[in-house]
Amino acid sequence: MSGSVATRLVQLGIELPPVAAPLANYVPAIRSGDFVWTAGQLPMVDGKLPVTGKVGHGEGLIDPELAYDLARIAALNAISAIAAQVGSLDRIEQIVKVVGYVASDPAFSGQPAVLNGASELLGQIFGDEGAHARSAVGVAVLPLDAPVEVELVARVGR
Amino acid sequence: MSGSVATRLVQLGIELPPVAAPLANYVPAIRSGDFVWTAGQLPMVDGKLPVTGKVGHGEGLIDPELAYDLARIAALNAISAIAAQVGSLDRIEQIVKVVGYVASDPAFSGQPAVLNGASELLGQIFGDEGAHARSAVGVAVLPLDAPVEVELVARVGR
Amino acid sequence: MSGSVATRLVQLGIELPPVAAPLANYVPAIRSGDFVWTAGQLPMVDGKLPVTGKVGHGEGLIDPELAYDLARIAALNAISAIAAQVGSLDRIEQIVKVVGYVASDPAFSGQPAVLNGASELLGQIFGDEGAHARSAVGVAVLPLDAPVEVELVARVGR
Repeated sequence: MSGSVATRLVQLGIELPPVAAPLANYVPAIRSGDFVWTAGQLPMVDGKLPVTGKVGHGEGLIDPELAYDLARIAALNAISAIAAQVGSLDRIEQIVKVVGYVASDPAFSGQPAVLNGASELLGQIFGDEGAHARSAVGVAVLPLDAPVEVELVARVGR
Repeated sequence: MSGSVATRLVQLGIELPPVAAPLANYVPAIRSGDFVWTAGQLPMVDGKLPVTGKVGHGEGLIDPELAYDLARIAALNAISAIAAQVGSLDRIEQIVKVVGYVASDPAFSGQPAVLNGASELLGQIFGDEGAHARSAVGVAVLPLDAPVEVELVARVGR
Repeated sequence: MSGSVATRLVQLGIELPPVAAPLANYVPAIRSGDFVWTAGQLPMVDGKLPVTGKVGHGEGLIDPELAYDLARIAALNAISAIAAQVGSLDRIEQIVKVVGYVASDPAFSGQPAVLNGASELLGQIFGDEGAHARSAVGVAVLPLDAPVEVELVARVGR
């Protein structure tokens, strides 16, 4: 990495994690034409989920503020996957789309606030080019019982 | 707006709603290359959800026919978001993809009929160019406890 | 169909099924620019779901190994839809993205192993060009109470 995004990461005190190994027979990110598409990224830290379960208010549920942090981690893993694929984050011209899945207690409808953990990180790192269209969905359960999963589509330069 | 799509909207008696403000740190629609991607759109009317809850058959559930209308509203909000982004609906060359999420009682499997509210609107407005690939999914819960959420990808001309 | 992919299908003993009729007002696959996007494909066999229900461990649930086979069938239906759209599978330059939805018991978090049924089929048929970014999600319920739904994005040549 070089250039302005790398500098901004240092200023933000953010270190890109190593790319999480896929759980199966696919790749962490793929470039096709002008776009890079990531796999759905879990909030892995050192290869493990720091916490598992469903997000909501109440006993046995993951607190939404913790889930916010997990969405940020998942987005950071997605950025790492893109960086490994295209060589440098400075090639990213635009974050296009974010789909965020939150494993949710059916009574919990605060998915947007959870996924702000991802969206705000993208704004911090990429500025105006980090603005994206986003879908937030509350699902029954995610792989490995992860509380959140985030996927990105980005446009990259040649 | 000008030209044939605007005319068709008038003929259909459809008025584009104002673009719903995002619930968080993202944009309602973004153009990247030849495509426009919308955020997941809720069936907001005048900034509010007319009804909340899960779709299904039975007490306390949203009737699927009402959900059909909500899917139509959500799709209309998505079209508004695209129009605001590209300036004129006549620049839309093709509706490419629709993903429709229906907050569903686990016993309810009629998501396709619900999302026909979105698909049929697109056909009415765009004709052959409104034909799209679609995924319909029943999820546990949606932001603000919305019954449906619709996102679009469209191809636009330069 | 002609050329190497067709040959590989014969060698694998895989026959492309007829394209499943959409459940509603949309198309099985659409080409736009360099990409083909499929509708969410259910594991239809001869126009019917061989089994319905949620995937998980326990009585009344679909066994994950059976769900693996269903994910393979759904992916094969998606490939058929692409082939019908672009004329020949040899025009497919890259499988880009797979989103796999698994109708899941909330205690079941093995969605990745289920969706390997789709990913491994793509690897068998397309080799290196079958490597893709993938999102696996466990949802409350799918159309017609299908256990799995698979959608693809592929890049195609002109």
